[in-house]
Amino acid sequence: MAGDRTESVPPDQSADLARRIARHRPGHALDRAFYTDAGIFERDLDRMLLKHWFLAAHASSVPRTGDFRVVDLGAESIIIVRSAPAEIRALLNVCRHRGSRVCTTASGRATAGRLTCPYHAWTYGLDGRLLVAREMPEPFDRSDFGLRSLPVRVVEGLIFTTFAREPLDFASAEAALTGSAGVHGWAKAKVAHSETYSINANWKLAIENYMECYHCQPAHPEFSKRHVYARPAAQSEAIEREGRRRADALGIVIADVDEYGESSRPGGESVSVFRSALNEGVDSATRDGRRIARLMGAFGGHDGNSTYFDIGPISDFLAYADHGVIYRFIPRSVLHTEMEVIWLVHEDAVEGTDYDVAQLTWLWKTTSIEDKRIVEHNQAGINSRFFEPGPYSSQEPYARRFVDWYLRELAGN
Amino acid sequence: MAGDRTESVPPDQSADLARRIARHRPGHALDRAFYTDAGIFERDLDRMLLKHWFLAAHASSVPRTGDFRVVDLGAESIIIVRSAPAEIRALLNVCRHRGSRVCTTASGRATAGRLTCPYHAWTYGLDGRLLVAREMPEPFDRSDFGLRSLPVRVVEGLIFTTFAREPLDFASAEAALTGSAGVHGWAKAKVAHSETYSINANWKLAIENYMECYHCQPAHPEFSKRHVYARPAAQSEAIEREGRRRADALGIVIADVDEYGESSRPGGESVSVFRSALNEGVDSATRDGRRIARLMGAFGGHDGNSTYFDIGPISDFLAYADHGVIYRFIPRSVLHTEMEVIWLVHEDAVEGTDYDVAQLTWLWKTTSIEDKRIVEHNQAGINSRFFEPGPYSSQEPYARRFVDWYLRELAGN
Amino acid sequence: MAGDRTESVPPDQSADLARRIARHRPGHALDRAFYTDAGIFERDLDRMLLKHWFLAAHASSVPRTGDFRVVDLGAESIIIVRSAPAEIRALLNVCRHRGSRVCTTASGRATAGRLTCPYHAWTYGLDGRLLVAREMPEPFDRSDFGLRSLPVRVVEGLIFTTFAREPLDFASAEAALTGSAGVHGWAKAKVAHSETYSINANWKLAIENYMECYHCQPAHPEFSKRHVYARPAAQSEAIEREGRRRADALGIVIADVDEYGESSRPGGESVSVFRSALNEGVDSATRDGRRIARLMGAFGGHDGNSTYFDIGPISDFLAYADHGVIYRFIPRSVLHTEMEVIWLVHEDAVEGTDYDVAQLTWLWKTTSIEDKRIVEHNQAGINSRFFEPGPYSSQEPYARRFVDWYLRELAGN
Repeated sequence: MAGDRTESVPPDQSADLARRIARHRPGHALDRAFYTDAGIFERDLDRMLLKHWFLAAHASSVPRTGDFRVVDLGAESIIIVRSAPAEIRALLNVCRHRGSRVCTTASGRATAGRLTCPYHAWTYGLDGRLLVAREMPEPFDRSDFGLRSLPVRVVEGLIFTTFAREPLDFASAEAALTGSAGVHGWAKAKVAHSETYSINANWKLAIENYMECYHCQPAHPEFSKRHVYARPAAQSEAIEREGRRRADALGIVIADVDEYGESSRPGGESVSVFRSALNEGVDSATRDGRRIARLMGAFGGHDGNSTYFDIGPISDFLAYADHGVIYRFIPRSVLHTEMEVIWLVHEDAVEGTDYDVAQLTWLWKTTSIEDKRIVEHNQAGINSRFFEPGPYSSQEPYARRFVDWYLRELAGN
Repeated sequence: MAGDRTESVPPDQSADLARRIARHRPGHALDRAFYTDAGIFERDLDRMLLKHWFLAAHASSVPRTGDFRVVDLGAESIIIVRSAPAEIRALLNVCRHRGSRVCTTASGRATAGRLTCPYHAWTYGLDGRLLVAREMPEPFDRSDFGLRSLPVRVVEGLIFTTFAREPLDFASAEAALTGSAGVHGWAKAKVAHSETYSINANWKLAIENYMECYHCQPAHPEFSKRHVYARPAAQSEAIEREGRRRADALGIVIADVDEYGESSRPGGESVSVFRSALNEGVDSATRDGRRIARLMGAFGGHDGNSTYFDIGPISDFLAYADHGVIYRFIPRSVLHTEMEVIWLVHEDAVEGTDYDVAQLTWLWKTTSIEDKRIVEHNQAGINSRFFEPGPYSSQEPYARRFVDWYLRELAGN
Repeated sequence: MAGDRTESVPPDQSADLARRIARHRPGHALDRAFYTDAGIFERDLDRMLLKHWFLAAHASSVPRTGDFRVVDLGAESIIIVRSAPAEIRALLNVCRHRGSRVCTTASGRATAGRLTCPYHAWTYGLDGRLLVAREMPEPFDRSDFGLRSLPVRVVEGLIFTTFAREPLDFASAEAALTGSAGVHGWAKAKVAHSETYSINANWKLAIENYMECYHCQPAHPEFSKRHVYARPAAQSEAIEREGRRRADALGIVIADVDEYGESSRPGGESVSVFRSALNEGVDSATRDGRRIARLMGAFGGHDGNSTYFDIGPISDFLAYADHGVIYRFIPRSVLHTEMEVIWLVHEDAVEGTDYDVAQLTWLWKTTSIEDKRIVEHNQAGINSRFFEPGPYSSQEPYARRFVDWYLRELAGN
């Protein structure tokens, strides 16, 4: 579906873009225009964002048949709807008559198994088929006017979709999710809380920020006290080894996967999984380091580790023994990105008894507010015509890897 | 005056526009770019909006010599001023010295018959002539520096103006207004109330919405209970016939006029008039269906009909036996349109005695708020790069007609 | 530094700009595009704003070593920091690593003589040298990654800087400042108050407005009652003569300098100085015309004059015997300009005893609020496609001179 009815690009702008890509200095941040140019943002959508899979929601947020959530990306809007007890669909939220949004609330429930456009009452089934359209002149074949359907994969409770007409192969991603979210029991999780942060910055700055922990010690003291990952590799080896020993002792097996970006399989979606230890005495990502909710999945105890996994360019996950955190990055326009953070707990956990929302969300709320601020300051500095991209540190390999991948995608290779 | 000092258009953009126009599918909504592209919006102004007549105000809003109102369109601003007891003028609200707005309030009264620019005190007569300009170096001929004057037609209390240098012939419009607003007594009306709705959508979506009643049943239950026009033609024929019978019985003669858009006379302004019945037992557009104000014009009683008339692309009118409603659409920028709604009653009607403003305005306030919402949802959906214009229903012939007309105007034919 | 990494300009736009410049009518305001086109605003920065010196701050606002202020221009941000007791530096507020703002507050103090980027903790000395950068892969030479340094001149307490790689000669400006701000004792002044006004208009309208007093009588009654300058030359000659006599009697010698704009020395910065009398009985720019603070500099009494001086295109000054007023114009984007007004008093003056802030700031707060309004009305009118630039009056020679200068700079001569 990507590129379907895209506006044509004036040829000299493409040439210009190719020149910009060619003059990138390896190991350095991107040039200003990649973070500030509205035309390049449209290319970001065409050539990368709309081609990859991304997380739409956790399945627990549409529990009953007919429940839906509206999910955005750029100027696009999708309806994620449970179309049958064991089936979830993704439908383009654009009426096939005159283009109105069909669902106009962030979430809701289709009455009588139908999605009715509020403008002219064209009525669709939960599978997107057009069921009713009054007063249409003949010839009119309703089967030509269903809501556009997007591919969906539900893995371990995570609903993925993509705008791509020929979607990237999801097999590696599925295997990696089974080996990570699966072990963490996310198929039997529920959403305990979510927050959306509006960031006045280009989406790539938000992703680069997520991808590196060079900034953790200066900018995230709360995270750094709990997560070994904030330290340079040389300072964390022994602690990480100890963490793996604890996991082994509990029988937790989560294999690293490194098929991210340029390392992804040909035609396959990008995926990475790795674990990193928590500091000594830290069981979970809480203020006092103590457990916060019921143990999940295969975890019979706290092994003092966290599991990071990433699918495609904008969907990132972080799992502890007793809860999970999802980061959904939602590029909206060249200088505006939304960041939705979703906290998961065991589906049987009871708020107030098994967990306290304020305690559960404290670390990643604090960290997200810090991230919004530092990413916006980053954008402000980059807006300078005198900005010169500097070299990445040895603690930013994943940011560098993201940027290399991005440029290759943008070049259309 | 249109095109006067317009910025030149890069030739390849015009070519692109011609291609877009050529690929329009008859009977379908417009392509996305017509609703989202800032460059096309400038073309809309040059080739359509600034060439047609539009309603500026009702004459009762500038009752005394010197009274003025400021009226906007796009980035343009006009002063509508009563320059003599029986004379109304339209002046460009741009000082001929350095370009300041001359009138900086929405309405007011020229003191001592003069309009003085608040910046450098250049002072103009109510006819726009420059009267005073201090300290101007010779040679300086004040007669070269009057405020630009726009053509004005006042018909049945309705003040029309246009930016066109060679205005479209207004004779058909004048005749049609006499046969509609005239019968409804709008020359002896006054403004009872007005509201302005700010709509985050392209102006054409607001016009298409006004032009069709396919959406009335789903989106306007209050309107649909009172107006037969909400129904498909096949379901309303008998009731409409009955309505015409009631009009005949009261001696009300308002002829249909169909010179709208592509059906307008060569060189003449677009105009249409038609009547439609109210539902049984409904006398006026009120909550209980009962009359709300003094009878107007030729109406000796309530005939249970409403009269719709339209002049040019953005001025629309709706008359009942006891009150009137004016819709002024004010395109401001590509994604922003203002919609002013003006309620008229008999000039001798007394508020509190003859009419109650809350009752008078209830239906069209309700309907306008609904319209703002549905038009904005329409725009949001159209912003999708996957939006495909769908076919108009048989209840949207006037929307289709508007779109055909628009494309022809934009093509410059 | 100007033009350093500037995005390339499509050639046909430059050609278009040259055509626009060529068709300017001498003695008239600029065409609309110069006030509304975002591309031309970028040219304004490249070819004029970033090439000239501008006032960053008064030295008293960074009294101690380590004190800094952040100063903006367009999308640029500079750190003005006292790097040693007798040394002030200007550093680009863009980290050399990934581009974050280094200082993120309007003012502050570097702790331990270091400026640390809040993102990844790259740490710079007050001279901009990079002192600490953790975990950088070899080869990495810290001396390659200092903050960019801009030239600084501190004259009579006024801190000037420029983005120009080859700065304009500042000798004339320095001499003129010594002969004006020096006589007024601004080297021994302090900031008593400052205000920033956000003006929704192009910066050139704000400058033109500052440069002419044709609007003073209609728009600034408070100013006009106190300043003879509000009158046309023919009406003020006798009073100005009397003012000069009073200055002579007090031994105040401030010579006129007229090297503004096109009259500036080749390769030298633009500068002008002139004095103008206050009205009879007015000692200072206060509500009651009476003195407001301690006498400054060479002034042994009030001579009933004001001294106007200007350096470059956006830095303007006004001095009385007992206080000073600085206007900093800060172009931000094509339709947005900030105007910072700074009030100076004798460095030993004590608030509450020697001066009252409300009294001190009354006239120029009142006048600035009026200026914001009239400049915004000017912009609104100019946005009309029917705006035709009119002729300057004989009371606007400096506005005309500014416009002529601007066009020459923009043409790149």
